[in-house]
Amino acid sequence: MSLPRITVWNEGRHEKTNPVVQKIYPAGMHQVIADYLRADGYQVQTATLDEPEHGLTEAVLEQTDVLTWWGHLAHDQVSDEIVQRVYERVMNGMGLVVLHSGHFSKIFKRLMGTSCDLKWREAGEKERIWVVEPSHPIAAGLGEYFEIEHEEMYGEHFDIPAPDALVLVSWFKGGEIFRSGCCYHRGRGRIFYFRPGHETYPTYHHPQVQRVIKNGVNWVAPVGTPQITFGHRPQPLEPLTT
Amino acid sequence: MSLPRITVWNEGRHEKTNPVVQKIYPAGMHQVIADYLRADGYQVQTATLDEPEHGLTEAVLEQTDVLTWWGHLAHDQVSDEIVQRVYERVMNGMGLVVLHSGHFSKIFKRLMGTSCDLKWREAGEKERIWVVEPSHPIAAGLGEYFEIEHEEMYGEHFDIPAPDALVLVSWFKGGEIFRSGCCYHRGRGRIFYFRPGHETYPTYHHPQVQRVIKNGVNWVAPVGTPQITFGHRPQPLEPLTT
Amino acid sequence: MSLPRITVWNEGRHEKTNPVVQKIYPAGMHQVIADYLRADGYQVQTATLDEPEHGLTEAVLEQTDVLTWWGHLAHDQVSDEIVQRVYERVMNGMGLVVLHSGHFSKIFKRLMGTSCDLKWREAGEKERIWVVEPSHPIAAGLGEYFEIEHEEMYGEHFDIPAPDALVLVSWFKGGEIFRSGCCYHRGRGRIFYFRPGHETYPTYHHPQVQRVIKNGVNWVAPVGTPQITFGHRPQPLEPLTT
Amino acid sequence: MSLPRITVWNEGRHEKTNPVVQKIYPAGMHQVIADYLRADGYQVQTATLDEPEHGLTEAVLEQTDVLTWWGHLAHDQVSDEIVQRVYERVMNGMGLVVLHSGHFSKIFKRLMGTSCDLKWREAGEKERIWVVEPSHPIAAGLGEYFEIEHEEMYGEHFDIPAPDALVLVSWFKGGEIFRSGCCYHRGRGRIFYFRPGHETYPTYHHPQVQRVIKNGVNWVAPVGTPQITFGHRPQPLEPLTT
Repeated sequence: MSLPRITVWNEGRHEKTNPVVQKIYPAGMHQVIADYLRADGYQVQTATLDEPEHGLTEAVLEQTDVLTWWGHLAHDQVSDEIVQRVYERVMNGMGLVVLHSGHFSKIFKRLMGTSCDLKWREAGEKERIWVVEPSHPIAAGLGEYFEIEHEEMYGEHFDIPAPDALVLVSWFKGGEIFRSGCCYHRGRGRIFYFRPGHETYPTYHHPQVQRVIKNGVNWVAPVGTPQITFGHRPQPLEPLTT
Repeated sequence: MSLPRITVWNEGRHEKTNPVVQKIYPAGMHQVIADYLRADGYQVQTATLDEPEHGLTEAVLEQTDVLTWWGHLAHDQVSDEIVQRVYERVMNGMGLVVLHSGHFSKIFKRLMGTSCDLKWREAGEKERIWVVEPSHPIAAGLGEYFEIEHEEMYGEHFDIPAPDALVLVSWFKGGEIFRSGCCYHRGRGRIFYFRPGHETYPTYHHPQVQRVIKNGVNWVAPVGTPQITFGHRPQPLEPLTT
Repeated sequence: MSLPRITVWNEGRHEKTNPVVQKIYPAGMHQVIADYLRADGYQVQTATLDEPEHGLTEAVLEQTDVLTWWGHLAHDQVSDEIVQRVYERVMNGMGLVVLHSGHFSKIFKRLMGTSCDLKWREAGEKERIWVVEPSHPIAAGLGEYFEIEHEEMYGEHFDIPAPDALVLVSWFKGGEIFRSGCCYHRGRGRIFYFRPGHETYPTYHHPQVQRVIKNGVNWVAPVGTPQITFGHRPQPLEPLTT
Repeated sequence: MSLPRITVWNEGRHEKTNPVVQKIYPAGMHQVIADYLRADGYQVQTATLDEPEHGLTEAVLEQTDVLTWWGHLAHDQVSDEIVQRVYERVMNGMGLVVLHSGHFSKIFKRLMGTSCDLKWREAGEKERIWVVEPSHPIAAGLGEYFEIEHEEMYGEHFDIPAPDALVLVSWFKGGEIFRSGCCYHRGRGRIFYFRPGHETYPTYHHPQVQRVIKNGVNWVAPVGTPQITFGHRPQPLEPLTT
């Protein structure tokens, strides 16, 4: 099977205003993610909030097998029309990888049906991410756990539907735990939520974080699922009278 | 534990215009459901679309532990404000039993995050409902299967998230199958979807259909779940420096 | 519904030889668990390894709706015949609550089909147990989390099938996490695994630990599930020729 | 990723004694399955019950990424030692595809922890297999359903743990339904159960049945999951005193 075509979407606002973020991600965090995936052979394009149609035109999405999503400050500025467009693409098979603060994006909340709320703290504390479903493709190439030296804390309760597969759970120094790697089947598409990625830490440079993103892209990639039809079926498949 | 207080909601339009439905449900299908539950000792009120606020005022919902929902013709006429009110109640622990064509209600689609679409046929064919998770409370008091002599067909693919527990699967004479008894945890609430109940058949008089509705009410009833808080936690639970 | 009849099973060996354990549980840890449940109105009997048939005669099991299981040192001394007897009871509807080191009992491994292995450390460290499925009956009456000041650590990977519902996840001071409250449907029975309970700490005196055990007992209690039949069905339910 | 190396295991007894089976599968049903997979580029070997060690020597299993299993008459003649060998391989990452009457094999029952019993009828009736999770790799390349003109019936209740993903559900002419495509994560391995394949029908020549087997092989194939370690961890990952 050929590799999926990826669009890495980024809100891209922190990078414009925050010197700390600019230093870690001079070309935007989308470029770090895209470069990593390109180096692995994927065909990758990027898109950001401030482009026309947020960079997610019909043409772009038609050539996108997997979309990754990072947003934080400006969820409300993503137009409902584009959200609807992405939603329909997911329902029809496009994979979606939702990163970190994307938990509060319109598209993720719409797909989950819940508030997607959580607890959080910015204290640069240690996060240790444990694999709890080692046979899952999301765990490919990882060890039993990996550590991120400094991260924002996200804590339970995370108001999501129980994942179809829970692969990663985080331990935080400050006392919380979090379901950090969550897999969903929705419509004809698949969704992977991955927790780490606060903008003021170099998380997307972390080799194992990158590996999980790649695994996520592979897992949500369309696999030639059947076309589904709905609605009126006046003609039974079997005779009703015997 | 005391029995949950139930509100049986019905669109109630077919009963006003269709003589076939009027004959089967002279006082509305909500009355048949309510009477069955009352006979079993539950405290039950009813509410319908054409009442002010669709009968679902703040006061009514505050005294409702479990809401059952039947709608079909007029999903669009349910006001977004009331849908939001019900949604918030479910997120905060109120149980919800969604019946038959309620699969296309605003509240169910919102909670599921998917289209909730399906195939259908009105041919009065036989439905046989099989228990596939016999240890689940939804299966209490049932046999291995039960039959409904004449029903509308609903066929897969049913575009829902895979249920947290799948308890019932239907066989239809015309050749289709359907996931008919689906359990969900969402927020602090629980949701049970139950397939049968086309308005032109006496389905809600059927003893085993009634039993499943009662089991559903019991299963979704609030159990004293914890109050959940979200948001900023500047203070760690454990010291961050060692 | 009447309360389930409970049998609290305990290996009971630590209590005979270890003064630390004797001080915490002078009459055995089974008595502390049984007393708590009795005070709540349940009909409870106890049984231990060193009784004839480990206290689990046919007669005892026939009057048992829910069995709780604590074992550690002597899993191998539980006879295969009694394990088979308990297994058949679970398959036919008896609830089972497996506590702490019971994860390595013959009955739990048999029911899970996996090794049920894990990491462990005895350092009396702090455990904080988080609720991740607040609408589940196992979470009734709890807060968002509760703490056990000193406990043995159990760490992932815990080699179990993904639970049908995951309700509790533990944080440990020493850096690990653990899926601590796990619900399973198996055959006509239900199983709840609950992590805490090392013999040298007063864990079963802890009010919230006791509450979870009670919730577990209630959740696994039989609900009048259907009798299931298997095997040859030469006669189709529907005519095969049309 | 390179294609997995497959071993197709077959009991191979019906083919020796039953002329009907011999006519459909002159070289054994394992050859039909193996030839299909080879034509698709997979490296495939076969093994049967009557070979030494049932053809499943340590050497063979070490070179096996995915094992497919068909057995029926002689489950009891599979030695416990070989079952244990296969079990350990699955726990350490080898994929397993269990076909049809393999539901009653020692290895499948061991991995599931339940009886794996079901209802059955040999009447050559029509089976229609519906896709209920279209985004799952098991559904790749299928339509919304496919039909097998003549098959043995398997009916619920099928006494298995609820699958981690349920992808296919069968409709039978005679009135039953069955969970026909069931995915499991167990240990570091994955297991796919696929229902069709009675020996007296040409089921394994059916293009869509072959496609599902190929999808199953791909889905259970090892993905480089982490090595897992268990046991004593006297050294905490974080300091316990602060």
